[in-house]
Amino acid sequence: MAESHDHSAHIKSVELERLIFFSDAVFAIAITLLVLELRVPERAGPDVGVVLRHGLLQLIPRMISFVFSFALIGIYWFVHHRIFRHIRRWDEGLIFRNLVLLFWIAFLPFPVALNGAYGDQPIAVTIYAAGLMMTGLSQLWVWRYASHNGRLLDPGYDPRLVRLITVRSCVAPLVALLVIVLAWVLPLPWMANFAFGAIFPLQRLAVKRYERGAGTPRSD
Amino acid sequence: MAESHDHSAHIKSVELERLIFFSDAVFAIAITLLVLELRVPERAGPDVGVVLRHGLLQLIPRMISFVFSFALIGIYWFVHHRIFRHIRRWDEGLIFRNLVLLFWIAFLPFPVALNGAYGDQPIAVTIYAAGLMMTGLSQLWVWRYASHNGRLLDPGYDPRLVRLITVRSCVAPLVALLVIVLAWVLPLPWMANFAFGAIFPLQRLAVKRYERGAGTPRSD
Amino acid sequence: MAESHDHSAHIKSVELERLIFFSDAVFAIAITLLVLELRVPERAGPDVGVVLRHGLLQLIPRMISFVFSFALIGIYWFVHHRIFRHIRRWDEGLIFRNLVLLFWIAFLPFPVALNGAYGDQPIAVTIYAAGLMMTGLSQLWVWRYASHNGRLLDPGYDPRLVRLITVRSCVAPLVALLVIVLAWVLPLPWMANFAFGAIFPLQRLAVKRYERGAGTPRSD
Amino acid sequence: MAESHDHSAHIKSVELERLIFFSDAVFAIAITLLVLELRVPERAGPDVGVVLRHGLLQLIPRMISFVFSFALIGIYWFVHHRIFRHIRRWDEGLIFRNLVLLFWIAFLPFPVALNGAYGDQPIAVTIYAAGLMMTGLSQLWVWRYASHNGRLLDPGYDPRLVRLITVRSCVAPLVALLVIVLAWVLPLPWMANFAFGAIFPLQRLAVKRYERGAGTPRSD
Repeated sequence: MAESHDHSAHIKSVELERLIFFSDAVFAIAITLLVLELRVPERAGPDVGVVLRHGLLQLIPRMISFVFSFALIGIYWFVHHRIFRHIRRWDEGLIFRNLVLLFWIAFLPFPVALNGAYGDQPIAVTIYAAGLMMTGLSQLWVWRYASHNGRLLDPGYDPRLVRLITVRSCVAPLVALLVIVLAWVLPLPWMANFAFGAIFPLQRLAVKRYERGAGTPRSD
Repeated sequence: MAESHDHSAHIKSVELERLIFFSDAVFAIAITLLVLELRVPERAGPDVGVVLRHGLLQLIPRMISFVFSFALIGIYWFVHHRIFRHIRRWDEGLIFRNLVLLFWIAFLPFPVALNGAYGDQPIAVTIYAAGLMMTGLSQLWVWRYASHNGRLLDPGYDPRLVRLITVRSCVAPLVALLVIVLAWVLPLPWMANFAFGAIFPLQRLAVKRYERGAGTPRSD
Repeated sequence: MAESHDHSAHIKSVELERLIFFSDAVFAIAITLLVLELRVPERAGPDVGVVLRHGLLQLIPRMISFVFSFALIGIYWFVHHRIFRHIRRWDEGLIFRNLVLLFWIAFLPFPVALNGAYGDQPIAVTIYAAGLMMTGLSQLWVWRYASHNGRLLDPGYDPRLVRLITVRSCVAPLVALLVIVLAWVLPLPWMANFAFGAIFPLQRLAVKRYERGAGTPRSD
Repeated sequence: MAESHDHSAHIKSVELERLIFFSDAVFAIAITLLVLELRVPERAGPDVGVVLRHGLLQLIPRMISFVFSFALIGIYWFVHHRIFRHIRRWDEGLIFRNLVLLFWIAFLPFPVALNGAYGDQPIAVTIYAAGLMMTGLSQLWVWRYASHNGRLLDPGYDPRLVRLITVRSCVAPLVALLVIVLAWVLPLPWMANFAFGAIFPLQRLAVKRYERGAGTPRSD
């Protein structure tokens, strides 16, 4: 796949923009396809009103799954946004790792649908959380590759900020791992999903700890 | 989520463009997915021509819903276009509020389908109008955040124009509220949808009133 | 919808790019959604191989419809490309007419599916050709609006080239009209679709006639 | 289709960017639509857990097909990326050939679904490999057209690099041809798909051979 055998990084260019654009499009399509799982109840039976109300009630778990998943893909998009803000150059290694990340993003509508339909089965919650974990790990992989010794970063990068982004990127995969454990322990597997809410305070904690470690950190 | 604890706004940059691009993609996908609700009638029975004509007649409410919804998402896109014309900087608060707006846009294909299939049920029309109302309110939220004390606007912004955009952005949510009320009052709930037509003269009225208040307003 | 009551055209800007981008996204999504009509035959029965071969044979009309429709949307995209090459400014009238065009583009997957499933019914072929005709007429509407007295064009525009684009843009809607007539006259309605092939020589004729009218016309 | 009868190539411009953008959007949509073939098993029967586990096991061939196809479309996107890195100008011939390539990209979700559902039937594997072969051949067609005598390339192009890209672009179609042959020879047709793995070492070989032929080749 490599025409150049040394990993000489190319300078920021229209190709980096194209890479970001392609990623954004995949994120946008995956996040918008989620809604296709919210199927309108079949019109049937003598009392349409009852059928509709019953059908909508049955959709509630899928709705919750939709909201959660939109939020999580939204966060991953936002993190991708933040990571690429610091990247100035690209090479084939970056493109490959980014494609792996996009694979997991494009795959997400499936585990989301599974979680919406089988939230009472630990295996469905596990696949859902595992999908989100793989997404997070791929993103970490992209970032580790780009930031290792500042390989593809702006030359004036702040090593503390790089570490902070690394630590923060570990939070979501770790929480997803916790969700998997909970899915097998809790009596109602879908309740494990609520553990995803822990992502926010934990990230805040990471930011706090790093701030205490040094004076005023440079803003991201 | 915040690496910077003061909400220091960043200058207009490639990231703002990426935010706009991502929003445009979600708008474009949502508006194009609407057509998936127009399902071709199943080929069956001895007289295919009759089946087809009958099936097409039954699709008419969905077609009307399709046209209405395309127009309304088109208007929201256009308003997003206009709002971001005045925004010069961004911060995480803007990204968050814009993601909430995109959530409602990405969700719209579901209430549109519901309205098309169950237009005779007040609850379906209510969910449809509520979805459009939440979209409008989220957009208002984005605009209020960006324009409050000119936070993220071009420094030379015109306060009267900001107020005009605010007033105009209230029209669609208020009309959606009216649709909800009508859906429960009218004998045929789907007729409530026609109240959406009131958006255009009411916006014109808002523009007129503001124009009377001052000399020649600066063009938007 | 108009904050400015005189149709003062804005100079070419990031907004025009956003308009083009949004249009491109709708074109790309509509053209890619066509494939969803090519459904894989259900796996059933004792002899899977026979089921598959039989199912694939039955898909042939849809395949032909897919190829035709891809080509026609591709042409419309290309014409959009060419029209906007000459447009330098925008106003709300252009945005409105372009949204009408995008409505017809986003709608196309439905008549395409109809044509694929009911090619033996003149009404299906009619709806298909009418959808393509409306798309072409909307595009003509965009172009007439933009080019009238050179309203939104580059100041140094060539009036003969403008007329040539106008004439060429009339070809597809006229051929679609012919297809509608043929669908009711021919014994096999789907054969009417082949008349779309007339678009190419007729456009070439238009180019030739204009070339004869003057010396070397300026290249488009 | 041609307003200009001589194939005068236009200089690199916003139109070339629009062409690339449109292509990227089609790639992104096609690659993301693949997931729609991974349908969640129907919830039914008394023991939901057994139904789910059984359903997931049955999805495995589709999953493998999904992973393979994502990788192959990803590679084609990457090659498109690389080809257009060298193209500086465009003409209608390039647009036409690129539309043909996009046709095959937009078509791919169908053979992918076929391969996932009927991997045990040589005809399904053949259609799948043929779809990938046509995609590769179209890409080769784009590249041959653009690079012939350096027609649309940067004037300072490296002829050896052009040849290298040509040779490398032949690898995927040739391997697809091999897959077709194997699908009819092997007892289990879906095993033929694994031959796609040969793409990577063969491309590396091509790079090696060209490197031996000259000193240090210019990096791509």
